[in-house]
Amino acid sequence: MTDNSVANGAAPGVLGASMAAETAQQPEVFERILREGSAAIRNVARKIGARRPRFVLLNARGTSDNAAMYGKYLFEVALGLPAGLTSPSTTTVYGARLDLRDVLMITISSSGSSPDLVESTAVARDCGAMTLALTNTPGSPLTEVAALHLDLLAGAEDALPATKTYTAELLTLYLLVDALWGGRGEAAAELPRLARELLARSDEVTAVAERYRFADRLISTGRGYAYPTARQAALLVMETSCMAAHAYSGADLLHGPLTLIRPDFPVLAVVPEGEGARALVPVLDRLLELSADLFVIGEPEAAARGAVSLVLPSGLPEELSPVLEILPLQRLAYEMAVGRGRDPDSPHALRRVTRTR
Amino acid sequence: MTDNSVANGAAPGVLGASMAAETAQQPEVFERILREGSAAIRNVARKIGARRPRFVLLNARGTSDNAAMYGKYLFEVALGLPAGLTSPSTTTVYGARLDLRDVLMITISSSGSSPDLVESTAVARDCGAMTLALTNTPGSPLTEVAALHLDLLAGAEDALPATKTYTAELLTLYLLVDALWGGRGEAAAELPRLARELLARSDEVTAVAERYRFADRLISTGRGYAYPTARQAALLVMETSCMAAHAYSGADLLHGPLTLIRPDFPVLAVVPEGEGARALVPVLDRLLELSADLFVIGEPEAAARGAVSLVLPSGLPEELSPVLEILPLQRLAYEMAVGRGRDPDSPHALRRVTRTR
Repeated sequence: MTDNSVANGAAPGVLGASMAAETAQQPEVFERILREGSAAIRNVARKIGARRPRFVLLNARGTSDNAAMYGKYLFEVALGLPAGLTSPSTTTVYGARLDLRDVLMITISSSGSSPDLVESTAVARDCGAMTLALTNTPGSPLTEVAALHLDLLAGAEDALPATKTYTAELLTLYLLVDALWGGRGEAAAELPRLARELLARSDEVTAVAERYRFADRLISTGRGYAYPTARQAALLVMETSCMAAHAYSGADLLHGPLTLIRPDFPVLAVVPEGEGARALVPVLDRLLELSADLFVIGEPEAAARGAVSLVLPSGLPEELSPVLEILPLQRLAYEMAVGRGRDPDSPHALRRVTRTR
Repeated sequence: MTDNSVANGAAPGVLGASMAAETAQQPEVFERILREGSAAIRNVARKIGARRPRFVLLNARGTSDNAAMYGKYLFEVALGLPAGLTSPSTTTVYGARLDLRDVLMITISSSGSSPDLVESTAVARDCGAMTLALTNTPGSPLTEVAALHLDLLAGAEDALPATKTYTAELLTLYLLVDALWGGRGEAAAELPRLARELLARSDEVTAVAERYRFADRLISTGRGYAYPTARQAALLVMETSCMAAHAYSGADLLHGPLTLIRPDFPVLAVVPEGEGARALVPVLDRLLELSADLFVIGEPEAAARGAVSLVLPSGLPEELSPVLEILPLQRLAYEMAVGRGRDPDSPHALRRVTRTR
C-alpha cells in the first residue's frame, strides 16, 4: 500500500492505489474473520443470548450506517427482534435519557473514534442497554466505553472510501446473528472463493464504467437486504466521482424520486436471488416504462432486463448476498473515478475521522 | 380548488393552483386540529399511557416518512422512549413475525391505502403491538386494521406534493406526545397566527426562487428536529422541479456528501433556534470554507451567515418549529416549479397512491 491517500496530489499512475488494493484484499479478510473471528463472535452471541434483549438499536454513521441497515434486516427477519437505527443526536445534542433496559445497542465504527458515537454508546450503557462495539481499531475510544467489542480484522484501511471494513462489518453482523440462531457460519464458507471469482471478472465492470463515462447523476435501488448495497454503491460513487448518486429503496423510489427518471437516466438496480428480487419486479417494470438506462447486478432473469448487467453467482442465501454483491460496485466506483482523473483514495473535502457531536 | 391536478396538461395560468391553495390553507388546518382534534388526541394518549409502551415504531413512506422521523425525535427526546422507523418490507417481503409486545406502532399515511403499510400494520397488531393509524382518510383500509385512529383533519388534498397533510401529521404527533406528558397543547396556540404571518412574507421566498432559477442540484441539511424539514424540503423540490435535491443530516453530510460541495453549490440549511442550531454551527463553518452558496432559514445569527436567508419568528419551542419552518419551503418549491413552466400539482410519472408491497 502506498501513502498517496494522505496527500491530495497523488501521481496519475497511482490514482486510487489504496482503494484498489483494499478492494482486492477482501477474500483474505473474509477468510481471516471466518478463521480467527468466529470464536469471539460466538462468545459475544452467548452473552447476548443470556440477556435476551427485546429490541436492537444500531448506532452508526456514513458507510457503517449502511452496514447498520443490513443488521436491522438481519435481526428482524432472522431473529424476529425489532430493530431500529439510532439518531445519535437524540443523546448528544438534546441530552435525552432513554429507557434502554432489554435493549442491545450495537455501535459500528471502523475508526471507533467519532465523538458522537462514543458518547451515545456511553450514555446508552448508562441507560441500561447492553452495548457492543464493532470496530477495526482495538483500543479505540469506542472499545473502551462499550461493554462488548468485536474486532473487524480487516487490517489498516488507507483509502478514505470504505471497502473492506464495510464487508467485514456485514460478515461480522451475519455471523453474530447466525450464532444467535445456534449456527456456526457454515453458509459463509464459500464466500472467500466466490469473492475471488467475482473480483476476477473485472472486464464486466470496466464495460459499465465506460458506459457511465459521462454520467453526472445516478440513482441506485434495491429492496430488503439489497437496499443497503444500493446505498453503499451510491455513497462510493458519490464520494469518488463526485456525482449526484443517490439510493432509494424500491418502494420509496415510487413515492417521489421516480419523477427524476427520464429516458437514459442511469439507474443501478441490485437484484440478487430471493424475495427482495421478486418485490423489485414492479419497480423494474416502471423504470423500463420510463426508458431508464438500467444496470442490473443480480440474478439472471432480472439481469436480462438491464441494458447492461452483471450476473451474480447463485447459491448464497439472500441474507449473505450483500457481502458479495458490493464487490463489483466498489470496483466500479474506483474505475469511474480514475477514468475521470480523480484520486478515489482522497476525495475532495473529506476527512478520515469525522468529528461531530 | 381546481381539478387541474388530475389532468397533466393544466393551462399555464393555473400551474400548481392546488398546491398553492393547499399551502395557504395550513393556518386553518392548524386551528381545526387544535379546536376539533385535541379531544380525540388526548383520548388516544390516555389509552397509550395505560399500556406503557417500552418502544415506538413509526411506519410510513415518502412524505409521511419525514413526519415519522420527526415523531422519532419527539418520542425519544420528550418522552425518553426509544423509537425506530420500520422497514415495511421486513413483514411484507420477508414475512418476518416480530415480537412486538410493549411496542406502540404508529402508521402514518395520508391516503391510508398503501398496501404495504396496511399489511405491516395488521401483522404488527397480530404480533402484539398497540397500533395507531394517522390518516387523512377516515374509513380507509388502514383505519380498519389499526386498533386506534386519529384523523388528520386536513381536508381533501388534490396536489400530489403533500403540504397540509404533512404539517397536520407533525402537529398531531406533537399534540399526542404533549398529551402523553399531561400537556394540553398550550405551546401550539400561537401556531396559526405565526403560520399566517410567515406565509404572508412571500417576497422573501420569491427572491430565493429567483436565485435558484438555473440551479439543477440542491443539498439541504439540518440537525435533530430540523432534519425532517430538510428532508421534506428536498423531496418537494425534487418532485416539483425535477431537480437532484437531497437532504443529509448535518453529521452525515460531513461523512461523504461534503465532497460534492464546490463554490456556488446551492445548500439549504434549516437552523431554527435551539440545540439543533448550535450543533449545526461546525457544519455551516465547513460549508462556508468550501464556498457553498448558503440559504439559511432559521434564527438570526445563523441566517446572517447565509448568502440569502429567511429569519423565522422566535418564541416557538424547538420541537414545534418544524410545523412552521416548512411553510416557506413549500412555497419555494411551488415557485421554483412554476418558474420552470412545470405543474407542481402533477409531477411527471408519479401516482397518488403508491402500490408497493
